[in-house]
Amino acid sequence: MDERLTRQISFIAEIDKLKGVLRRTRIMDASRFENTAEHSWNIAVFAMLMHEYAEEPRPNLDRVVRMLLIHDIVEIDAGDTFAYDSAGYVDKEEREQAAARRIFGLLPDDQRDEWTELWKEFEAVETKESRYANAMDRLLPLVHNYYTGGASWVKHGIVRSQVVRRVAPVESICPHLWRFAMELLDRAVGKGILKADAVMD
Amino acid sequence: MDERLTRQISFIAEIDKLKGVLRRTRIMDASRFENTAEHSWNIAVFAMLMHEYAEEPRPNLDRVVRMLLIHDIVEIDAGDTFAYDSAGYVDKEEREQAAARRIFGLLPDDQRDEWTELWKEFEAVETKESRYANAMDRLLPLVHNYYTGGASWVKHGIVRSQVVRRVAPVESICPHLWRFAMELLDRAVGKGILKADAVMD
Repeated sequence: MDERLTRQISFIAEIDKLKGVLRRTRIMDASRFENTAEHSWNIAVFAMLMHEYAEEPRPNLDRVVRMLLIHDIVEIDAGDTFAYDSAGYVDKEEREQAAARRIFGLLPDDQRDEWTELWKEFEAVETKESRYANAMDRLLPLVHNYYTGGASWVKHGIVRSQVVRRVAPVESICPHLWRFAMELLDRAVGKGILKADAVMD
Repeated sequence: MDERLTRQISFIAEIDKLKGVLRRTRIMDASRFENTAEHSWNIAVFAMLMHEYAEEPRPNLDRVVRMLLIHDIVEIDAGDTFAYDSAGYVDKEEREQAAARRIFGLLPDDQRDEWTELWKEFEAVETKESRYANAMDRLLPLVHNYYTGGASWVKHGIVRSQVVRRVAPVESICPHLWRFAMELLDRAVGKGILKADAVMD
């Protein structure tokens, strides 16, 4: 077998481990935690589904989907950092960059460079494509939490304003979905599955 | 919430069930069966990775990836039909068509039509995109089986010629990968994780 194909197959064998990385979000029947591989599928389909809500001129969906399919591969080494874990965020970037070097480094050089670029673009949240991809990645867990009775909100004592900050990137790129998200949060508070913010008297 | 978005969110809630559909293939550490959601992620990334091996003019990768992301959604109702289960194949098409009507039918009409078309294109194996997508869908389980010590080959007593027939669609669209697949099968037989075909004297 030639060296190039050997490297590509080693990469596929390696990223299979993403199926064993658990997130804090539960699958919608609430029976177990979601893993990062199935999340990556889910978020790519969600981005296809919601594309019409992105502000014009819309992001290139092809690039968005490819970005989302690989955006969490670094979690094989770096683990999933919980959205509301500020301690975990301290060295998140460093851990993820080392992971990207090792894992994408399994690929032939040209693919390593191309896939690393795609991942960096997602992380930098500067291009339209990465802003939209990040917005989807923030919005879907909110939908999941709502449909699972606020499973991870309740468990970790999350309050409404924390979720609002978390989904903030949705507002400028998908304003219609932002209003929808705010509506879901209001309903979640009404149902008692998300804490309202403390009211200052 | 407007009706269109309500339908789209219902669809996302529904397809979450794909995370609970189990395949006969194990994840590569062999610890458990793979589910169809994580398989869908895996196969889309595999198609990105192997695109250079498709015969010129190459299939449109964007369409291939979107096709693979949704190709197995029908399994929510129809279940995963094992590749070597000829009884299961008798009514596979009928079961899957009913599933497609119900599940894609949750979407707004324009998206229902577009996504159903994409799924039908995959199933028909006529366009270059769907021939390549199907080839990837045949090849990846072979790689998985090889890396998991032939888990499902051994369990179901599969012989080499059955796998060769199964991966036949790879030959015309990705000849280099076909030769690679044949090499893996020879090695698998050599290792005793796949039965050689009976030799006629």
